[in-house]
Amino acid sequence: MIHQEWHLTPIGRVESPLKNTAAAPRQGDEGAPDSTLVIDEEFAAALEGINQGDTLIVLTWLHLARRDVLVVHPRGDATRPATGVFATRSPNRPNPIGLHQVQVTSVTGLCLGVRHLEAIDGTPILDIKPVLAPRISDR
Amino acid sequence: MIHQEWHLTPIGRVESPLKNTAAAPRQGDEGAPDSTLVIDEEFAAALEGINQGDTLIVLTWLHLARRDVLVVHPRGDATRPATGVFATRSPNRPNPIGLHQVQVTSVTGLCLGVRHLEAIDGTPILDIKPVLAPRISDR
Repeated sequence: MIHQEWHLTPIGRVESPLKNTAAAPRQGDEGAPDSTLVIDEEFAAALEGINQGDTLIVLTWLHLARRDVLVVHPRGDATRPATGVFATRSPNRPNPIGLHQVQVTSVTGLCLGVRHLEAIDGTPILDIKPVLAPRISDR
Repeated sequence: MIHQEWHLTPIGRVESPLKNTAAAPRQGDEGAPDSTLVIDEEFAAALEGINQGDTLIVLTWLHLARRDVLVVHPRGDATRPATGVFATRSPNRPNPIGLHQVQVTSVTGLCLGVRHLEAIDGTPILDIKPVLAPRISDR
């Protein structure tokens, strides 16, 4: 295993009115505000083809999460049974990668305006992917 | 930025009849074989609550991908216009994290049998997440 190659490179940061995790909704469809993905200039070419109206998957590094937690009460609710983190969306997990589905509201140079992102201000962005439409043969 | 904390920890590996990328379909719904997620023992507790029949999102580290590619022809088809990797599902990207939706066909100790996984044998697994059902208020 060449562990040097397992280093993550942030491709940008989230700009959001959410300033701390206490203010953030648990999921993007639970009242997350409009935010901006600010991409580093060196990755500008990788944005070519992203347009207003697109639905994207954004992967983030949840930099405030704990990596040593394996079992949680879902949504922090102690009345719910303890559950393995891989069966929950808890931010606390061995590799705290956030997965978010967003709509692109604007594309301005290196800034993508997006709707429905529950990540807090300053969260590093790891990757952006399109949501694939079902193939016609699947419909 | 504390870059030491940006190191990824594999939580397990894919066992698959797909032995190289030439054999792998481009998407899981394009004929990917049944595979097994073999989770490392130290993360056993994190699997609690995953059951046969669940739909999961698996994040992998596409360890054979190139990280210096920013623009590709989608699906390797030179007749398609060059497109930024963030607007494609190319494995080549700055952080080559694979995103796969799978169905769990069996749970046996540290092994999850899954359907529809296009990752090749030996691919490191980074994370497993449930697919969240739409909330009743969204229906």
